[in-house]
Amino acid sequence: MEINLNADLGESFGAYQMGNDSLLLDVVKSANVACGFHAGDPWIMTQTVEMALPKGVSVGAHPAFPDLQGFGRRAMQLSPKELEASILYQVGALDGISMAMGARVTHVKPHGALNNMACEDTDLAKVVAEAIRDYSRDMILLAPALSELAKAGTAAGLPVALEVFSDRAYTDSGHLVSRSQPGAVLHKSEECVAHVLRMVEQGGIVSINGKCLPTPFHSVCVHGDNLHAAETANKVRLGLEAAGCTIVTLPEIDLS
Amino acid sequence: MEINLNADLGESFGAYQMGNDSLLLDVVKSANVACGFHAGDPWIMTQTVEMALPKGVSVGAHPAFPDLQGFGRRAMQLSPKELEASILYQVGALDGISMAMGARVTHVKPHGALNNMACEDTDLAKVVAEAIRDYSRDMILLAPALSELAKAGTAAGLPVALEVFSDRAYTDSGHLVSRSQPGAVLHKSEECVAHVLRMVEQGGIVSINGKCLPTPFHSVCVHGDNLHAAETANKVRLGLEAAGCTIVTLPEIDLS
Amino acid sequence: MEINLNADLGESFGAYQMGNDSLLLDVVKSANVACGFHAGDPWIMTQTVEMALPKGVSVGAHPAFPDLQGFGRRAMQLSPKELEASILYQVGALDGISMAMGARVTHVKPHGALNNMACEDTDLAKVVAEAIRDYSRDMILLAPALSELAKAGTAAGLPVALEVFSDRAYTDSGHLVSRSQPGAVLHKSEECVAHVLRMVEQGGIVSINGKCLPTPFHSVCVHGDNLHAAETANKVRLGLEAAGCTIVTLPEIDLS
Amino acid sequence: MEINLNADLGESFGAYQMGNDSLLLDVVKSANVACGFHAGDPWIMTQTVEMALPKGVSVGAHPAFPDLQGFGRRAMQLSPKELEASILYQVGALDGISMAMGARVTHVKPHGALNNMACEDTDLAKVVAEAIRDYSRDMILLAPALSELAKAGTAAGLPVALEVFSDRAYTDSGHLVSRSQPGAVLHKSEECVAHVLRMVEQGGIVSINGKCLPTPFHSVCVHGDNLHAAETANKVRLGLEAAGCTIVTLPEIDLS
Repeated sequence: MEINLNADLGESFGAYQMGNDSLLLDVVKSANVACGFHAGDPWIMTQTVEMALPKGVSVGAHPAFPDLQGFGRRAMQLSPKELEASILYQVGALDGISMAMGARVTHVKPHGALNNMACEDTDLAKVVAEAIRDYSRDMILLAPALSELAKAGTAAGLPVALEVFSDRAYTDSGHLVSRSQPGAVLHKSEECVAHVLRMVEQGGIVSINGKCLPTPFHSVCVHGDNLHAAETANKVRLGLEAAGCTIVTLPEIDLS
Repeated sequence: MEINLNADLGESFGAYQMGNDSLLLDVVKSANVACGFHAGDPWIMTQTVEMALPKGVSVGAHPAFPDLQGFGRRAMQLSPKELEASILYQVGALDGISMAMGARVTHVKPHGALNNMACEDTDLAKVVAEAIRDYSRDMILLAPALSELAKAGTAAGLPVALEVFSDRAYTDSGHLVSRSQPGAVLHKSEECVAHVLRMVEQGGIVSINGKCLPTPFHSVCVHGDNLHAAETANKVRLGLEAAGCTIVTLPEIDLS
Repeated sequence: MEINLNADLGESFGAYQMGNDSLLLDVVKSANVACGFHAGDPWIMTQTVEMALPKGVSVGAHPAFPDLQGFGRRAMQLSPKELEASILYQVGALDGISMAMGARVTHVKPHGALNNMACEDTDLAKVVAEAIRDYSRDMILLAPALSELAKAGTAAGLPVALEVFSDRAYTDSGHLVSRSQPGAVLHKSEECVAHVLRMVEQGGIVSINGKCLPTPFHSVCVHGDNLHAAETANKVRLGLEAAGCTIVTLPEIDLS
Repeated sequence: MEINLNADLGESFGAYQMGNDSLLLDVVKSANVACGFHAGDPWIMTQTVEMALPKGVSVGAHPAFPDLQGFGRRAMQLSPKELEASILYQVGALDGISMAMGARVTHVKPHGALNNMACEDTDLAKVVAEAIRDYSRDMILLAPALSELAKAGTAAGLPVALEVFSDRAYTDSGHLVSRSQPGAVLHKSEECVAHVLRMVEQGGIVSINGKCLPTPFHSVCVHGDNLHAAETANKVRLGLEAAGCTIVTLPEIDLS
């Protein structure tokens, strides 16, 4: 079975360092690269793509609300036209940087508050999906399994890669358990590995109560905010490989 | 004889209006569109391209230093790597917005202080030209005639369109007369028209002292900061047409 | 009877011009000066205060959400701590610029989405009022009559100046008629003058249906976005003076 | 003998962490707090002042060029009026935040490229010093010993505290050895301690060649970019105390 691992990368800015990109790029096969609105700047973006390519990691855009101070985590109300333009701007900017290295952006995953809102709000999801479709009908939309965003991507005719989270617990309805609840975030490496393998084995999202919501998924999202997280990401990869999975890039996955 | 008219457009930002884009788009055939660093934002960029396309105006990127407060007019010291990345970012961003409308960016013209510095500084000119070349070998560089930037474009293998200014006087060495000098800017419409026609007839830049510096040129830059400027731009066009010129887009000009 | 006229000023930014500050400063007696978050920059702020002082116009801070692109008109979710700090930052910045000219900021009026939200949301209003109170117990809060913000100001022990709008219609419950409704904005000068005089005569807010909600008020807000608006502002002033009112600065009004 | 220790603090931004503020605040007695232009945001500034006050550390403003992406380290050309306004804005903003906690900004130290330029350029130094003087004649200017900035501060009538650097070598003319030269930065704790004590004993700046340039100085600048630097700062403090110095805040030093 082929599966993808993805992570958010290139979230440094100017003199500010964030994350363990170098370590994570040895673990994941697809990188969601910040595009300058919530994090990243042109030179950081360039360095991130330069690191990813020789490691065989596919490059994706990680567009966000224009909110560096809030790291794109604060809800903002953009008009549909503004939002569409902002997504095209960010995807194009990263694609421009990639093209100069002979590569292309092959997927898009919205960031932070934009992603959260697009997973719940059908209208917003449609704006996001159609902006990506207007950029390129071949662009892969990386969206959480069972989300409105994933549905909107399919409706727009995009190839949609469905993701699950390695370190987040799910409710019985398939949503992420709110961070304010106990158990929302899995802190131990073994928990994360077990959580992911359970979902692979059962063929769906497994909730905090053990309920399985059957759904295909193509990618597992891991994090690298600190050293422990990067190590956990690696253990998730090793666990998947031990279970017989091959870790591939998003464009290598059959999404038809 | 075929010649191009170009102007800087899309320089509004959010609630701030600047220029007379609608008027100028009936005059020029190529638009240098601000890319969000000195002016413009994603939605302004979108609206500008949306207005340009049905009028048969070709779309160019107008990248600048990241300085909205200074409108890109202040000298900044970016490292070559940062500058290269910033140009790719801006060109790609506008191209992303254009692609969603089925169009492409076909030329690049640096803005303000970046343009001024690249016209004088051989090393900086090389960075700018090679960034554009790395984006696409078919991208037209729109650069002042006789400038270091134009030379660097040719050296990088780019198609280079040479421009002259309709409302600026030149020194005997082919540089713009400094704005601090009397006569630097031509304020009357008739002066601008006569200045341009003189250069067309003599086949080169004609200085404030009447000296001709022979050089091909392919485009005339006009301005539309106020209503008078937009009207002058139109008179320059009418004057060129009366002199037998056909006004075309940059991609239509033979730059080989 | 003494009454104040106030307007939003200093909303230019860098090369971008907005409003008719010079005209309005001959009409109003208190200026709400943008502080760099939604509009204004340090040099614009300086020029605005420099123009206001010799005309006997009192200077107020007009703090906003950090959203230049959206002109502070988009709802944002800042934590109470961030919001408090942002208000203190902006008020202090303008006060610093004013102090260098021997003047002080004497009032604060929140801008745009921040003001709208603080007029409805009791908790947010409390954060705003207490931030101002922590800056100075003598700082006048300029708040819409009958708003939660005004109540919060009084509860915080601040001197509160209540304002009504010259060009906006009110509902029977004292809120502004939504801009999406017909009649929300009064466009004709005579309508604005009549609206203001009616409220002065009846001693309260007069709704679009003619209902009077009795409330003291100390200031009338006028606008100067275009030449017509600035002329209307002047007619409101003349109308008030003809009705026997003396136009004074906010600090001259007895708010006890 | 009384002497001050100062450090740059509050250089985090939003989700981005920088420096070891908590450690350094136990070592220094005066904090140069970033004001949002090169680093810092209103909430970071608030937290920094909140940490400094109970530790008896005096608060200073660390104004910079408006360049978050370049961390204020890139030369920018602001007009004198813009620069003056930008300094007043930043000092006022931090003072506003401090006032809400019952404290005041008591010194100003320019940051990065602005500081470097003001140490060399007499005209720029005058603009900086006079902006601070216009804010308050009692504001202490913290400037490198033997710099143009220090001279400009004295000429403007400001109390000027002269600083030396604990981890930087000096040329025989009293300038910092360029970072591109070997030995420019002292990396070992013992070297830093010895360097500082040598200057204290000899009553002046001691160059890399052992030459002494006699000058009073009131403060030693230490850094805390990493854990090692913070530990070195502490050793410098212990060394000074062992040599009989008392470490005090800038306002406690007699600058007359």
